[in-house]
Amino acid sequence: MFKSSVFNLQEATADQVKEFLNSFDTVLSDCDGVLWINNSAIPGSAEAMNFFRKLGKRIFYVTNNSTKIRSDFAVKAQQLGFIAEPEEILSTAYLVAHYLKGIGFRKKVYLIGSNGIGDELKAVGIRHIGVGPDQVKQDFKSMNSSDLDPEVGAVVVGFDEHISYPKFMKAASYLANEQCLFVATNTDERFPKSSTVIIPGTGTLVRAVETCSERKALVLGKPHDYVRKFLESFGLDPARTLMIGDRCNTDIEFGVRCGFQTLLVMTGVTSPKDLERMRSDKKPPLPDVVLPKLGDILSLAS
Amino acid sequence: MFKSSVFNLQEATADQVKEFLNSFDTVLSDCDGVLWINNSAIPGSAEAMNFFRKLGKRIFYVTNNSTKIRSDFAVKAQQLGFIAEPEEILSTAYLVAHYLKGIGFRKKVYLIGSNGIGDELKAVGIRHIGVGPDQVKQDFKSMNSSDLDPEVGAVVVGFDEHISYPKFMKAASYLANEQCLFVATNTDERFPKSSTVIIPGTGTLVRAVETCSERKALVLGKPHDYVRKFLESFGLDPARTLMIGDRCNTDIEFGVRCGFQTLLVMTGVTSPKDLERMRSDKKPPLPDVVLPKLGDILSLAS
Repeated sequence: MFKSSVFNLQEATADQVKEFLNSFDTVLSDCDGVLWINNSAIPGSAEAMNFFRKLGKRIFYVTNNSTKIRSDFAVKAQQLGFIAEPEEILSTAYLVAHYLKGIGFRKKVYLIGSNGIGDELKAVGIRHIGVGPDQVKQDFKSMNSSDLDPEVGAVVVGFDEHISYPKFMKAASYLANEQCLFVATNTDERFPKSSTVIIPGTGTLVRAVETCSERKALVLGKPHDYVRKFLESFGLDPARTLMIGDRCNTDIEFGVRCGFQTLLVMTGVTSPKDLERMRSDKKPPLPDVVLPKLGDILSLAS
Repeated sequence: MFKSSVFNLQEATADQVKEFLNSFDTVLSDCDGVLWINNSAIPGSAEAMNFFRKLGKRIFYVTNNSTKIRSDFAVKAQQLGFIAEPEEILSTAYLVAHYLKGIGFRKKVYLIGSNGIGDELKAVGIRHIGVGPDQVKQDFKSMNSSDLDPEVGAVVVGFDEHISYPKFMKAASYLANEQCLFVATNTDERFPKSSTVIIPGTGTLVRAVETCSERKALVLGKPHDYVRKFLESFGLDPARTLMIGDRCNTDIEFGVRCGFQTLLVMTGVTSPKDLERMRSDKKPPLPDVVLPKLGDILSLAS
């Protein structure tokens, strides 16, 4: 029923809402723009997520944000009123560590990123080169192979406010070795818009490293399907999974690629006008159902 | 004769060499990898260029390097034995200034680049925001619209060893205004390889700014055809023009796009092995003629 076209849940009958709620066992939700914006909860979102939990749904918080470790995300969620355990947080910093651990990676990581990734790597016993500034030398051209650590076997790119030319140079130089892995957290072009200032996202840095290394990164975050593979190893059934998001080109694209049902809310990046344009252009990925805000599910279900 | 397939000039008869030399009036040559490598002349290149000049050819030095002003390039060329006037140097820093001047640009430039571009802009009376480091604040998220200069009407991206997150942020924020121009010097992924260290090229920074601004830059350097338009305004005849380069994906691509004859030399980026692979794959852009090094033309012509 919900796959044929975008359906505004607010126009559903009580039976249709019930049918919808019975159609999934697992809820994956994006965080920023769906549950909260920066440090403020979006009204009703915590109640809605806790309601899903009460109905017996398994809950996972799926975020492309790579700046925090899982337990910090869980604390933030709890402080904003969500029931949340660290094990339910699928953040890209965690996914990077889990991925490298899973393939038996034993070398060192050259990290473009922040403490979120650094600490998750450390937690699984993977060494990395450190985080923070790496400023230009007197003459960057004086860099030579003695500035490269022969122990490095992977370049990881996440969000890094200390990005610099020497970091691009080192990343590209490590990646000149075909054996060196190239992993990125996500490719979001920018963060949700705040007035006139644009906050470049991790995708900006990933595209830069892809350009100078002339290689493509393995991207673990949405819309890539690593999270599905990860969850399927724990018995996830894609057909009975709901993905909730605020961004068509990451969250909904991710859900569509993975065969999940998808719910778009209008509290973040994609605006009603964007959606209208996408619908009239028949431009995928379109969500199955849509709500102004996640909390609206509560009055519909009551 | 020279258009049907890649022709090794060393296998030409004396008459064919003569025919080749009579087939063009204007010589455009790339610099790094053809004429010199860093600060060392490639043996024979100066004599070859000076020989073309003696034959009455018009000479232009066409470089994607944006770090120097024209007169500095001319001095460098002269010191390495080339006859060269500043007016014969078509460097991307100069092209940016010439382009903006030509369209009557009167606002200020937000510059990701170095003194080469800054000084060329200044020479034509265009204001810019300055060059050098722009480091991260205590909290980059505290940046707001008061950090943006309302006078800025163009973002120019060239080579910048002081690239930083705030620079990406400001560039993307200016470019959020559709009226703001977006000009790039070139999109070279990296500099010619020197052992194990990869030197990221301007293309790395251009792709990053294109990603976070969600816009495409107007690129003035090779392989884009702005140089042809520029020279045609001075009466250039593409059919009687020879482009000499060491890189198929910039120099030769540029020559092919512009309808010039093309000569590839093997003293820079594209190796004989690369060329062989491109020939067997019939993968364009292929040069019309090829020489191991530019200086080889001298013994063939004598």
